[in-house]
Amino acid sequence: MKSVLAYVKKNERRFQREFFDWLRIPSVSADFAYHKDVLRAGEYAAEQLKKIGMDKVIFTSPSRSAHPIVIAEKIVDPSSPTVLIYGHYDVQPPDPLKLWETPPFEPTVRGGRVYARGANDNKGQIFSHIKGVEAWLKGGEKLPVNVKFLIEGEEEISSIHLPAYVAKHRRKLKADYVLISDTEMISPTVPAITYGLRGICFLEIVVEGPNRDIHSGFWGGVVANPANVLTKMLASLTDDHYRVREPNFYKGIYKVSKEEKKNFSSLPWNRKELLKELGMNHMLANSQLDFFEKNSAFPTFDINGMVSGYIGEGEKTIIPSWAKAKLSFRLVPNQNYRQVIKVMTRSLQKLLPKKQGLKLHVVSSLGGDSFITDLSSPGIQAAQRALKKVFNHTGYCVRSGASIPVVATLKDQLQADVVMMGFGLKEDRIHSPNESYSLTNFRKGIQASIYFLHEVSH
Amino acid sequence: MKSVLAYVKKNERRFQREFFDWLRIPSVSADFAYHKDVLRAGEYAAEQLKKIGMDKVIFTSPSRSAHPIVIAEKIVDPSSPTVLIYGHYDVQPPDPLKLWETPPFEPTVRGGRVYARGANDNKGQIFSHIKGVEAWLKGGEKLPVNVKFLIEGEEEISSIHLPAYVAKHRRKLKADYVLISDTEMISPTVPAITYGLRGICFLEIVVEGPNRDIHSGFWGGVVANPANVLTKMLASLTDDHYRVREPNFYKGIYKVSKEEKKNFSSLPWNRKELLKELGMNHMLANSQLDFFEKNSAFPTFDINGMVSGYIGEGEKTIIPSWAKAKLSFRLVPNQNYRQVIKVMTRSLQKLLPKKQGLKLHVVSSLGGDSFITDLSSPGIQAAQRALKKVFNHTGYCVRSGASIPVVATLKDQLQADVVMMGFGLKEDRIHSPNESYSLTNFRKGIQASIYFLHEVSH
Repeated sequence: MKSVLAYVKKNERRFQREFFDWLRIPSVSADFAYHKDVLRAGEYAAEQLKKIGMDKVIFTSPSRSAHPIVIAEKIVDPSSPTVLIYGHYDVQPPDPLKLWETPPFEPTVRGGRVYARGANDNKGQIFSHIKGVEAWLKGGEKLPVNVKFLIEGEEEISSIHLPAYVAKHRRKLKADYVLISDTEMISPTVPAITYGLRGICFLEIVVEGPNRDIHSGFWGGVVANPANVLTKMLASLTDDHYRVREPNFYKGIYKVSKEEKKNFSSLPWNRKELLKELGMNHMLANSQLDFFEKNSAFPTFDINGMVSGYIGEGEKTIIPSWAKAKLSFRLVPNQNYRQVIKVMTRSLQKLLPKKQGLKLHVVSSLGGDSFITDLSSPGIQAAQRALKKVFNHTGYCVRSGASIPVVATLKDQLQADVVMMGFGLKEDRIHSPNESYSLTNFRKGIQASIYFLHEVSH
Repeated sequence: MKSVLAYVKKNERRFQREFFDWLRIPSVSADFAYHKDVLRAGEYAAEQLKKIGMDKVIFTSPSRSAHPIVIAEKIVDPSSPTVLIYGHYDVQPPDPLKLWETPPFEPTVRGGRVYARGANDNKGQIFSHIKGVEAWLKGGEKLPVNVKFLIEGEEEISSIHLPAYVAKHRRKLKADYVLISDTEMISPTVPAITYGLRGICFLEIVVEGPNRDIHSGFWGGVVANPANVLTKMLASLTDDHYRVREPNFYKGIYKVSKEEKKNFSSLPWNRKELLKELGMNHMLANSQLDFFEKNSAFPTFDINGMVSGYIGEGEKTIIPSWAKAKLSFRLVPNQNYRQVIKVMTRSLQKLLPKKQGLKLHVVSSLGGDSFITDLSSPGIQAAQRALKKVFNHTGYCVRSGASIPVVATLKDQLQADVVMMGFGLKEDRIHSPNESYSLTNFRKGIQASIYFLHEVSH
């Protein structure tokens, strides 16, 4: 492996240059104005994969409206394990532009970091793998496993077309391991492996009453107030401990294992610092275990926003015509998000008072299922050994409360052992102005990629 | 009285001209840009009162920041009853201007109506009384009662300074009757006397959580969501029938009498038409009696507006930093609005979950007490006789669910028999673009004023 690592060292400046060239392409998937740039960024990834020696590089659109997917493979030995490396070439919008210190699509190095939209999320992290595989293919040693790449252009817009594509091309994408680098480390010196993610589903609910805002003096008492009713309906969804009341919501839910509890209790945790970050005196967790269970292993119900009636200065004595709330549920393994949408929509419909002249609209948009893998799966063990080599630390195994729906799709459709080994840092400010990525982490990511492919081969 | 009525007929065109001159002054009290116009409109009222022969006309500001109050009196015989006529010369803002068919401060006659801001509310209605009194004073007959005027310039901004002024000048304003024309008739041919008004109080409540909107994936489950908590708090305030749960809220409340129930059951009521107006299939009242009890004789709790978190298109997976609601309670006799603010603030404080790191801010702005008078008071009887003369109908006695706090102040401070006899019509669109006032009602208002002063004298 020496020559592979030496190859990286020798080509470091070129790797960086090629990475920066990619960052220069404003592949904002959420805005159609950038459509051509999104295509260019995808093409750039495909060209890279060709250049490094991958076979069957395909740049394909699942549908006319979809941003293309880049796939490639290198089968060195059909009897060896196969690793599918997933990432995305699309980026978040750069707005608000005026908050950027240097332009978002002119990568600029300051203090060992490259500042640009997508520097971390996800161009930087996936490019480490492209270069890791290049080092294996060009560094004079034999790639120890089969490698496939799946790099999409719609991750920042909920991977709209990916699940259907993966289901359709299950065979082609078949892999024993899925490797994803789209998460964070604990600190610059302490890596982390994410072995679980929550699912999510969204509901938008509108309670409609009178055909306009009406005078609360003339009508107060005889016309049901949509805002009063909405608060009652939402309040009824959970008990005093914010647990969803509908029993079907929890049906068959995945329970936290003893092993996990032990793991939760061993994770770095600083209550004081967390509270300081929030500007609060209390949170809903009393202990480290309680914290990690509640923020990653239990489902939630959160009102993300609501609005009704008059919200300006002073008073307006009205019964609002309507009241609206945007809701989301974070889900855990064994909860199916489509099922939860059905169950909770029915709950809400039952909660609407009858014969009061009110109408209820519940709209559910996209959601996604949770993901969990065994804490001691071969993939995670290989990642731990790889991280140990690079960081001298096997990395903490964390279960995240956030949601990346595509992960569950890949796991379920490919029946693969998924490894989420990320090199981002909190200070990278992904999704915010002045996103950056540590060039050290870019380099260490390449090394970790090289070691992982080696470690997972035996 | 013949010559008094003849005087009206003879001077009708001048009355109308003088009324229109007043309408031309944009006395918008809510906007400081109109400050000088508000003063001019008050001066105009004072000049009118001088011209018609009232004594001791005073144009005075209760404080430097207050819009002046116009007062005047004509004591014909200290042993005769005294009638204080209350009205206001300030008007609502004319916005949105572009919806006006003719400019709001250029009175324009179309179809027997004068279109202008303040045409009904309240310049038209109070001007009828000024001209009614003029007819008595200049029409060759002796004014049958003592008359006082109290015309304020802050009614549209909650009569901020009036209660203190009335309390301080109780003696000067002393009267047996208070006559107010600031309400509506049932229809152009069917008058109404308002014998009750609800009180009101306002609370603005903010639940504060984390110092910014935070990611609901990382924090969901361990940080109390201010929007979730606000809905729970507001939902808890009332039971399933929207009745306030706090027992002290209803303490000593005024009960609907048998006589009132009979009256409610006799009022014109058309369920179908009301539902059509609302665009709803149901309301909270099952019968005529139920309707009038609930919309005028029972207190209410209404959320007038609320806002929290992300309310735009699409999804934003946040726990909002704060959640806010604007609340109002309509009150009935024997409820003191200051007491209700105290009681409900305490209730809300109790409802805030403890040790969850949340903060609660409850701000109460101005409110006012309810008003009720005896259905068969001498003042109401005199009004009924006067209305019978003008409209050939004694008028329905209605209890309004709306709130005009100054009415309770006048009743309580002066210990007077208050009569609310209004000449507005629903189609006058007060507070809206294209406010207008029927010139027939302007004329009939003058006649009713003349008859009332006569009828109340014996």
